[in-house]
Amino acid sequence: MPNPSAAMLVIGDEILSGRTRDANMHYLAGALTTMGIDLKEVRVVSDDAPAITQATKILSASFNHVFTSGGIGPTHDDITADCIAAAFDRPIDVRADARKLLAEMYAQTGRELNEARLRMARIPDGATLIDNPVSTAPGFTIENVHVMAGVPAVFKAMVATVLPQLTGGQPLISQSIRLMQGEGDIAGPLGELAAANPDLSIGSYPFQQDGIYGANIVIRGTNVADVNAATRKLKGMFPQ
Amino acid sequence: MPNPSAAMLVIGDEILSGRTRDANMHYLAGALTTMGIDLKEVRVVSDDAPAITQATKILSASFNHVFTSGGIGPTHDDITADCIAAAFDRPIDVRADARKLLAEMYAQTGRELNEARLRMARIPDGATLIDNPVSTAPGFTIENVHVMAGVPAVFKAMVATVLPQLTGGQPLISQSIRLMQGEGDIAGPLGELAAANPDLSIGSYPFQQDGIYGANIVIRGTNVADVNAATRKLKGMFPQ
Repeated sequence: MPNPSAAMLVIGDEILSGRTRDANMHYLAGALTTMGIDLKEVRVVSDDAPAITQATKILSASFNHVFTSGGIGPTHDDITADCIAAAFDRPIDVRADARKLLAEMYAQTGRELNEARLRMARIPDGATLIDNPVSTAPGFTIENVHVMAGVPAVFKAMVATVLPQLTGGQPLISQSIRLMQGEGDIAGPLGELAAANPDLSIGSYPFQQDGIYGANIVIRGTNVADVNAATRKLKGMFPQ
Repeated sequence: MPNPSAAMLVIGDEILSGRTRDANMHYLAGALTTMGIDLKEVRVVSDDAPAITQATKILSASFNHVFTSGGIGPTHDDITADCIAAAFDRPIDVRADARKLLAEMYAQTGRELNEARLRMARIPDGATLIDNPVSTAPGFTIENVHVMAGVPAVFKAMVATVLPQLTGGQPLISQSIRLMQGEGDIAGPLGELAAANPDLSIGSYPFQQDGIYGANIVIRGTNVADVNAATRKLKGMFPQ
């Protein structure tokens, strides 16, 4: 059986304007790989309602899981929850369970649960809350879409809540070999190795160091013995 | 007239597996913003021919410019050029102009222009070459799609070749204000300021520092006077 598939939807003008460097994609990619869920596509869209709604619909229909980051705070530019609700034709309003979480936290810290903060309790009908141990305001899961915050510490905490609830697949075993030869010198034999091992993914990632061309070769697969055998063959082809 | 729009297509399993942290998206986003081209969407797809071809078609039809990174080297997993050719129904083969560039470079460095390296001279019919001052193997532009390398140093050099040939728009002027108040405390007045200035984009980017919640407010627009006026109003609302 193939591994479950996943997509990520990153929401935020600040990434597309170059103001902020996204950190959540790299984190989620690593976490999913570890549990055998294959991240197949990432999309970054701006704080634009039709773009968010449309991307949600397409990704939700195309992959087993969709993870979103960004746009669920209290300010006017946080429109993700409403867009996700629209994508699934669900009503959305302040929900009692989310409101209670926020009310307790603000009561403890002596701050006011004002209208803006109440926006963070807007949850689509039928969604399940995602716990936020960092700053309380919850994310939510609706159908196969997991809606999480963009602040990296909160995103990580929500990922830690969501992933253990999902069924993983066979984690990819991977071996890396660093070759101090240009890709053009290794491409022929490497292509033959890849053709002889259709169940493995063999990637070549070139680099330059002090003017010398080299490549990191990464061999990935779900069968340890196969990965190790191909790695030994590769090492035999290019003794360093 | 609205600014030209753009999308980016990042190609590579290594990003989606979490092995490599993409650097090109952040770089291109900043470069486009400076020249008034609005980056509206980024997609990251794996080394999978249908995924690359399909994304190229959709993005090319939806935006004024598309910039791709990755998958144009000499190894078996470099399939971008063929996928782009397929997206535009163009024949692709080793082209004389690209072959000449490679032949001269390899002759100078005493290396062999072998079959693998010749793959880097595969250029779709009708495409224009993009100069690569770092490692010679060219990128190419076909219709509104600019196909560039994934290695960051080469990507940057190709961007430096392509961008001056494009017509920019009105660069966004931006002002940032760092507020040491939680988003929930500023969201009401901030939303009113945003509503009163529909031509400006006002974003709020929360952070936590030493347990204190704060937010960076970024005001963007093409009219300096408007941006400055809104910035003054915001500072008046929240004297720090």
